[in-house]
Amino acid sequence: MKRVPVIVFGVGGVGQALLRQIVNGRLATAVRNQIQFDVVAAADRKSLAWEPEGLSDAQLLGIIEAKQMGLPANPESGRQTRISGERPSNRDILDFAPAAELENVIVVDVTAQAGMEPIIDRALQLGYGVVLANKKALAGPWETAQNYFNHPRIRHESTVGGGQPVIATLRTLLDTNDPIYRIEGQLSGTLGFICGQLDQGVSFSQAVAQAKTNGFTEPDPREDLGGQDVIRKVMILGRMAGWPLEAADIVVESLYPAAMAALSVAEFMRETAVLDEPMRQRVEAAAAEGDVLRYVAELEAGRGTVGLKAIPANSPLANLKYISFRSGRYHDEPLLIGGKGAGVEMTAAGVLGDMIDLVREGQF
Amino acid sequence: MKRVPVIVFGVGGVGQALLRQIVNGRLATAVRNQIQFDVVAAADRKSLAWEPEGLSDAQLLGIIEAKQMGLPANPESGRQTRISGERPSNRDILDFAPAAELENVIVVDVTAQAGMEPIIDRALQLGYGVVLANKKALAGPWETAQNYFNHPRIRHESTVGGGQPVIATLRTLLDTNDPIYRIEGQLSGTLGFICGQLDQGVSFSQAVAQAKTNGFTEPDPREDLGGQDVIRKVMILGRMAGWPLEAADIVVESLYPAAMAALSVAEFMRETAVLDEPMRQRVEAAAAEGDVLRYVAELEAGRGTVGLKAIPANSPLANLKYISFRSGRYHDEPLLIGGKGAGVEMTAAGVLGDMIDLVREGQF
Repeated sequence: MKRVPVIVFGVGGVGQALLRQIVNGRLATAVRNQIQFDVVAAADRKSLAWEPEGLSDAQLLGIIEAKQMGLPANPESGRQTRISGERPSNRDILDFAPAAELENVIVVDVTAQAGMEPIIDRALQLGYGVVLANKKALAGPWETAQNYFNHPRIRHESTVGGGQPVIATLRTLLDTNDPIYRIEGQLSGTLGFICGQLDQGVSFSQAVAQAKTNGFTEPDPREDLGGQDVIRKVMILGRMAGWPLEAADIVVESLYPAAMAALSVAEFMRETAVLDEPMRQRVEAAAAEGDVLRYVAELEAGRGTVGLKAIPANSPLANLKYISFRSGRYHDEPLLIGGKGAGVEMTAAGVLGDMIDLVREGQF
Repeated sequence: MKRVPVIVFGVGGVGQALLRQIVNGRLATAVRNQIQFDVVAAADRKSLAWEPEGLSDAQLLGIIEAKQMGLPANPESGRQTRISGERPSNRDILDFAPAAELENVIVVDVTAQAGMEPIIDRALQLGYGVVLANKKALAGPWETAQNYFNHPRIRHESTVGGGQPVIATLRTLLDTNDPIYRIEGQLSGTLGFICGQLDQGVSFSQAVAQAKTNGFTEPDPREDLGGQDVIRKVMILGRMAGWPLEAADIVVESLYPAAMAALSVAEFMRETAVLDEPMRQRVEAAAAEGDVLRYVAELEAGRGTVGLKAIPANSPLANLKYISFRSGRYHDEPLLIGGKGAGVEMTAAGVLGDMIDLVREGQF
């Protein structure tokens, strides 16, 4: 049995699901994979739970409960060692592990924060494994991000496709020397939902409001509607495929005009109604041709486009969230991964799979 | 750089593609994966090429060329040590490796032969890694086959889905403790082709003849039409999912009547015309309901069916070769892998991916 200390940054939806999966899967992971994951630290922005021997299952479930009640991650009720005073810096959290004589640590980033690069760099310097669900470091400027691609101690399955085996598939194609010619897909569950609503005659503003109410969007829906999240995913896939992309290489269609960028979220939500009529006309024009609108990402030879596209309503791809690869071997029909590519459980499972993979490959 | 000796059983279409991929990808595999695969032996039924230092690229290409001219795999022109007299037994081929002081050998079975179990057992006993594209040992009686599932030194991506990441995906779901409820798919490229022809009004006998002419079928097309190959794939997936299936647990619909089993291949091909009219009626009955016929495998709770099924013509699954999994997490929408799941290049790439995976995981 291999005991593996784990430091988790981020105890939001994905982080909580991950802690729950670690607890619920503890016996199965021990039997099947001969691994025991000891969560030695779980940190959100404001607080830290820390126990060099590994937080107990009761403590981990207590953290989830506390978070779900909107409390910080270090409930008084837990028995974990509290850090006195202020929450230590991320860097200090990392450096506790060697001080506690922990080795072969895996650091998990399930935050949505920018600026985690120094933490990743420090973790790699310490010889740790790194699992990222957070896309921002991988989608940052190439000069920094290039260090994170093909690194033997970094895994990031959950950055694209929400835990479906998209990254693993692309890695296998590349490992077996299959050149990638074209990557295509519907990479946003949120925009997929909105497009589906438009098909059914729902107005754009109502569809956006519904997506926000259902919790499918970021707190500010413009982060989804502007395509920024899709661009990050496209850049990660394209960079893996060998193209040193920058954000400027991707042409993006935003679903709201630049003039609306300065509004508050509440103002924006009220103003979206002005977009209903032009969108209705586009949907109807597509329908007249037997098409539906989908928010599609297409990448080829290091240049890409992200935006609404008319697709025949009866094509298999109109009604499927998917990512597809055309390659040397898959040149006439692409290789396709489809299914529900969203949800915190899948994303957390992708992170757990990466953790097992790192241990199995003995890479750290 | 890790040098890994490889013994290849089978130099048919997949074996030749594998040798070509090893040669063509040698530099890339060295740079990307720090691995050099030394093919120390390549054997077909009648002959053997053998070189303890690894056959040279020229020799490997010579073997492919010789096979394509219909000659045995050990061309006179090669510099490899010839085994004098008769081709040695598979067991003796395996045992040469320790005699030559080779360690960490990978044994590849890309034959279609039954009865390879003793060779797999011996390879495991010697501490070798085993990569199977041949389904027969994994789909044999459970009492024997159970030893081959979840074995840390066996890989078999290419047994289902022709090199698409089907096995890897299922493994990740199981590793992350996601129980499998249902497996479904169109698992035969050959029958997928024939169903597509039927859609277009081609008669059954013409569709079968065309599939045979194109090289999509086994030499005896009844091996495809009887569903045996699909059953093997279903059993492999189901056994991975945790059900100790036997062939009798799968209800299969053969596309030819039992009375035609005794005919010679030539007689069978002539007689298929008698099946045209009943099949035409089924296709038309389905079309009247807006459906198309597809040869679908369905497996749930350890029992399965394999046969023709009417599917709405406008559903995404009617026009896509796919395998899907419903699981604890993918319960409302299944996880789906699709694309061209056939062809010797993909199958060989799946084998090469498995070889890299074994080395990466240090499992042998």
